[in-house]
Amino acid sequence: MALPVPSADRSAAPAAPSLEPLFRLMSADLERVNAVIVARMHSPVPLIAQLAKHIVSAGGKRLRPLLTLACARLGGYRGERHIAIAAVVEFIHTATLLHDDVVDASALRRGRDTANAVWGNKPAILVGDFLFARAFQLMVQDGSLRVLDILSQAASVIAEGEVHQLMTANDTATSEADYLAVIEAKTAALFAAAARVGAVLAERSADDEMALERFGRNLGIAYQLVDDMLDFSAREVELGKHVGDDFRDGKMTLPIVVAFARGDAEERSFWRRTLENGEQRDGDLERALGILKRRGALAETLARARAYAAAAAEALDGFPDNPLRRALAEAAAFATERGF
Amino acid sequence: MALPVPSADRSAAPAAPSLEPLFRLMSADLERVNAVIVARMHSPVPLIAQLAKHIVSAGGKRLRPLLTLACARLGGYRGERHIAIAAVVEFIHTATLLHDDVVDASALRRGRDTANAVWGNKPAILVGDFLFARAFQLMVQDGSLRVLDILSQAASVIAEGEVHQLMTANDTATSEADYLAVIEAKTAALFAAAARVGAVLAERSADDEMALERFGRNLGIAYQLVDDMLDFSAREVELGKHVGDDFRDGKMTLPIVVAFARGDAEERSFWRRTLENGEQRDGDLERALGILKRRGALAETLARARAYAAAAAEALDGFPDNPLRRALAEAAAFATERGF
Repeated sequence: MALPVPSADRSAAPAAPSLEPLFRLMSADLERVNAVIVARMHSPVPLIAQLAKHIVSAGGKRLRPLLTLACARLGGYRGERHIAIAAVVEFIHTATLLHDDVVDASALRRGRDTANAVWGNKPAILVGDFLFARAFQLMVQDGSLRVLDILSQAASVIAEGEVHQLMTANDTATSEADYLAVIEAKTAALFAAAARVGAVLAERSADDEMALERFGRNLGIAYQLVDDMLDFSAREVELGKHVGDDFRDGKMTLPIVVAFARGDAEERSFWRRTLENGEQRDGDLERALGILKRRGALAETLARARAYAAAAAEALDGFPDNPLRRALAEAAAFATERGF
Repeated sequence: MALPVPSADRSAAPAAPSLEPLFRLMSADLERVNAVIVARMHSPVPLIAQLAKHIVSAGGKRLRPLLTLACARLGGYRGERHIAIAAVVEFIHTATLLHDDVVDASALRRGRDTANAVWGNKPAILVGDFLFARAFQLMVQDGSLRVLDILSQAASVIAEGEVHQLMTANDTATSEADYLAVIEAKTAALFAAAARVGAVLAERSADDEMALERFGRNLGIAYQLVDDMLDFSAREVELGKHVGDDFRDGKMTLPIVVAFARGDAEERSFWRRTLENGEQRDGDLERALGILKRRGALAETLARARAYAAAAAEALDGFPDNPLRRALAEAAAFATERGF
């Protein structure tokens, strides 16, 4: 798995925050999660196995299952159940990715062709359903109704968030509150649930459980804010998908919401033409980027993300200061300083 | 809800089998299921509520939740939990319908525009996910890990069956065994689970539970066989969807599998052109229908369906002979004698 490496020009400054300490501390557990994922994606239907292999080998940061693993251990959990539950979290995430890529007609993710681009929409939809069902089977085998409750609730909120996002697309009247409601549901709900079930496995107090929930939720919001910024500002090779996809889809992400609010009449007319009417021509993405920078919309988005990341780190205050807690706090900082 | 009415020209013969007795016996319970469905489809996201209303008001036979209700009562269950679990069964079914209609690009179901035809594929996919997640939330609230186990297993098998069906599409080498494996997974698994959870609620013996599972499974196979026959032979206004959709999609249903096996070289070349190569022109559906009739493929499909329906009715033998058992047996007979 590719890990971020501090770039040379930062070598005099403090090392850039990284996921590496979290990966290192949880690597043995994470390998077992990967083994469960491979084993439980198996199906007598060959196309499911093929598609599953494509997804698994594409990797990804495995950030959500890492949260479950690390929060369970941070809570003092010594058992084995967190392995299967972390796999459940990744299955739910992968199922939503498969459906998202169909909904957005995305062709590239994590630097590879999407499943829908390779096999078409039909298997991508149905294998998403399969993974979702399989996630619930794994939870049933674990046998905790509390875990089932938290993750089925998250799954339902994610779907609501995705539909809400559809409704705000192409609508320049979308408010910051609408945008935040969308990302809290479609992204942060699963981060929150992933962290919270770690606390449940560790049988922590309700306060500790909600602290880890808050950690995950704030981290998830920070992560999505940066995702939406990177959609405009990243280098494509690092991002692993096409820059400007959200703009082409008419998605009302925070950079756009901020730039629209701060824009003059001419800029608003540009946003209306490109996003509401979907009339985009050569050079529009570059012009959009110019406006976003001039209006400070990308910087504002990053500033918000950093505030959420700080809130995430703060939520860990009640836990003992140890390498794992520091690695989780660093993961929150990484969320806002990453280039991919 | 429209109920089948025996047609006048059958009045001298024994009355045609009907779902009416089952509906009548379970109508109070079914009304409560409908109320739970409406209440639990609610979402703060308006598009979910709109789409849900469209689906609910389209009705359908509610056959699967009826199985849960009736099997619970047949087993002597006196409680209330079967209401929510029947709603779960209908949610899972509706979620798969939403995704099926996207996968098949269907425009008409139950005589109405499909959700994907009205709102597009994106909300149809995402509301399917929402309903699926909501089904699991309802089960978690019920709190039975046995019920969760049976229905999450069914959901996973359904998705496998749908993917398997994709793989047999356009493949004239599809065998009867392939076809049966597909329909057992994509259709009969939910019928079987719906009936079985009724027995679980009633706390029947393992033998009784498996007898009701067998009832549901055989009924589901019979039901799908007839569905696949009606796709060629039904009157469109009764069917509520377009005749010949499966043929246009290149689906290898039993009528085609039988006709291909019995066909001469010219017919096989016709099937290869229309189904494998997807080259269809005006008059091909009529020609297909002519071959299916001449080769006895529709009659053969119906004969198989009747055998499965008889096996379904037989599975009820161990239960006391009462109006409810007779109504369930009649529902099995109805499955093969219906025109829609």
